[in-house]
Amino acid sequence: MRLYQMQDSGNCYKVRLLAHLLNLRLELVDVDILIGESRTENFLAKNPNGRVPVLELDDGRFLAESDAILFYLAKGTSYWPEDRLAQAEVLQWMFFEQYSHEPYVAVARFWKSISPDCPPEMHARFPEWNQRGNAALAVMEKHLSGRSYFIGDRYSIADIALFAYTHVAGEGGFDLGSYPQIQDWIERIKGKPRHIDIAARP
Amino acid sequence: MRLYQMQDSGNCYKVRLLAHLLNLRLELVDVDILIGESRTENFLAKNPNGRVPVLELDDGRFLAESDAILFYLAKGTSYWPEDRLAQAEVLQWMFFEQYSHEPYVAVARFWKSISPDCPPEMHARFPEWNQRGNAALAVMEKHLSGRSYFIGDRYSIADIALFAYTHVAGEGGFDLGSYPQIQDWIERIKGKPRHIDIAARP
Repeated sequence: MRLYQMQDSGNCYKVRLLAHLLNLRLELVDVDILIGESRTENFLAKNPNGRVPVLELDDGRFLAESDAILFYLAKGTSYWPEDRLAQAEVLQWMFFEQYSHEPYVAVARFWKSISPDCPPEMHARFPEWNQRGNAALAVMEKHLSGRSYFIGDRYSIADIALFAYTHVAGEGGFDLGSYPQIQDWIERIKGKPRHIDIAARP
Repeated sequence: MRLYQMQDSGNCYKVRLLAHLLNLRLELVDVDILIGESRTENFLAKNPNGRVPVLELDDGRFLAESDAILFYLAKGTSYWPEDRLAQAEVLQWMFFEQYSHEPYVAVARFWKSISPDCPPEMHARFPEWNQRGNAALAVMEKHLSGRSYFIGDRYSIADIALFAYTHVAGEGGFDLGSYPQIQDWIERIKGKPRHIDIAARP
C-alpha cells in the first residue's frame, strides 16, 4: 500500500503509527501542501477533497480521511474492538477528535509551527483556538481519569487518533502541564512496543 | 432508547431519520442549546463535550456524536455495508461531513436561520463559510455524477449524514441550483419509504 502524506501532519502520522504497530509496509509519497501539491489535478483525482493522507490500496483504489483509514487498517485487529457499543465509542472519540479537537489543536500548531507565515486573519483566531482546544483537552483529561486508554482499557485507534495532535499540542501554544492524566496517557502510548515518533519514516 | 436532541439540529435529525427508517422507537428529550441546556452539570454528566445529540441506551449508557450514533444503530442493517472497504468509505464520507461540510454549511445555517442573533465576529465569517461550504458541495456533486448514493449504489448512513444539512443548505445562504446531481440525490432520499422530514417528531 502507498500513503500520500506530509511528514509533519498529525493526520498522516496516525496512519504511519498504526501501520508500524501492525507491521504493515507503506510506501510513503510526500505531498507538500504548503506549495499546493494537494490541489493539483493529479492529486484531486486521488482525493477530490484535496487533503492528505490518502491511502492507495494495492488494487489502485483510494481511501481518504485519516480516521477512516485507521478503521480500514485496524478492523480485525486488537485496535478495533469487537463489541458494537465499544466500536461506536471508538468512533465517538474519533469524531470528537475531528470536530472538537483537530480544528483548534492542530490548526493552531499549523499556523504557529508548520506554515512559514501566518496571515493576520489567522493570527487573530489564536485566542479562540486556545479556548476551544483547551476545552477539548479538558474533556479528554476528565475521561482519562481512572482509565488507561479511551475505550475499554485497551489501546485502540481512538487513542491513536487523539494522540497524534495531542502529544505535539505544545507546538500550537498549548500547555499540557495542567493535564496530568493526558501526560500519563501520552507516556503510556510512547512506551508501547513498536511505537514510532512523528519524525520516523519506517 | 432516549434521544437528547434539538429539533432544528441536522445532527439530531440524522438520528431521528435513521431510527424511523429502521422502525426503532426513540423517546425524544428536547435540549435547548440556545439557552445553555447542553452545558448544565446534569447534561455534561451525559456528554462531557456538551453537545446534542446524545443517545441513552436502555441500560443507561450514553453515546454522543451523531455519526457514531448512526453507526451504532445501522450496524447489522442495510445502512451499513458488509465489505470492509465499503465500510471505510462510509466513514470517509462521514468524516468529510463533520470536517469539511458541517462546520460551514451547518454553521452558516445556524447563525443565519436558527440563532436569534448573530454577533459581528460570526457575521464576518459568512464569506469563508460560503466559500468552504460550496467547496464541499462541489466535491459531493462530482462524486454523485453517475451514482445514486454515496457508496456502492445503496442508501447508507453516509447519505443520511450528508443529507441532514445539505437539504437545508438554503437556510445558510447556499444555492443548490448549481448542483443538479445533489438536487436529484435529495429527491431520491426524500422519496424513500418511511422518509420523515426535519420537523417530524415520530
